[in-house]
Amino acid sequence: MMTVSKSPHEREGARTMEFSIARTVQILQRTPGVLRAMISGADSCWVDEPYGPGTWSAREVVAHLVFAERTDWLPRARWILREGDRTPLPAFDRAGHRDLLRHSAGELLDLFEHERAAGLAELQALGLTTADLERRGTHPALGTVTLANLLSTWAVHDLNHVAQVAKAMAWQYRAQVGPWEAYLSILSPPNPR
Amino acid sequence: MMTVSKSPHEREGARTMEFSIARTVQILQRTPGVLRAMISGADSCWVDEPYGPGTWSAREVVAHLVFAERTDWLPRARWILREGDRTPLPAFDRAGHRDLLRHSAGELLDLFEHERAAGLAELQALGLTTADLERRGTHPALGTVTLANLLSTWAVHDLNHVAQVAKAMAWQYRAQVGPWEAYLSILSPPNPR
Repeated sequence: MMTVSKSPHEREGARTMEFSIARTVQILQRTPGVLRAMISGADSCWVDEPYGPGTWSAREVVAHLVFAERTDWLPRARWILREGDRTPLPAFDRAGHRDLLRHSAGELLDLFEHERAAGLAELQALGLTTADLERRGTHPALGTVTLANLLSTWAVHDLNHVAQVAKAMAWQYRAQVGPWEAYLSILSPPNPR
Repeated sequence: MMTVSKSPHEREGARTMEFSIARTVQILQRTPGVLRAMISGADSCWVDEPYGPGTWSAREVVAHLVFAERTDWLPRARWILREGDRTPLPAFDRAGHRDLLRHSAGELLDLFEHERAAGLAELQALGLTTADLERRGTHPALGTVTLANLLSTWAVHDLNHVAQVAKAMAWQYRAQVGPWEAYLSILSPPNPR
């Protein structure tokens, strides 16, 4: 008999929220303001420094989010609606935001706010049905995904990067907290890729 | 010869920011607005659910921050200025915010904003000198700390909990992201305590 490995939430038996576009939009519409509240007007020493070799600064995270807005989420949603799972989704370029790094943090926050507002307007205009949300695509590495998976990931990806901005900022003070470093998990070294 | 173990930032040889009250305040004054942008008006399913057994919801994190504002940061700063390292700092009660959980997320955000503004006004009124910042106290578990360590920790503790709020919210959608869970480190199970 084959043992099926369970994901963490199945092991816990915890409740889990159902997908809805409205709930997803609640997260997506917040993120530009969250990042603005964290970064806007803060000194360069908080915003422009990474948290170790090969990691991103808070500013670079915003550049990545702008690039993802332009090339990942709605382009992939349109792809799934048009192609289904016949053709794999185009790969996402994790380094594709390089050209955006010429912008200041303030400019990137403005760009992100603009792109996100346009993306949410387009999402609404798509008028997705329940059947649309179950449509399948093929991720180039992960295999079969649904449109609902993609839209959920859009929101969780935002939260992932909000946490990363907090880490990049916290890291700049890691030498200053002294013995309290032991209690601050955000100061743990980043995992090697 | 004894080998002295180095902290992560020493191993990396990375630059590290010097302490200043102004830089610390840049973080501290942002946090109420950051949490408001993340939480205010969001559905209960995002705000009131923990991310596993024994963990906190976003709302409970704000309750903890209110309690810490009242009993941890400035009370300990005053203790160091008055007692130095003769008497250990009073222990902080990690469960001390229980009574605050009767409040809604919106009420807790208001309380936190109020307490933080009062705390920053008092910090300014203390008129701390460079010599004051080097004054030492005794942490009940961690040993000798300085006033600058305490104030730095106040800011990094904020960022730690901003990241935790992002994780608690992200967790509610962990079943919805499907195969993308593999790419979203924020969905990794919390470390057991």
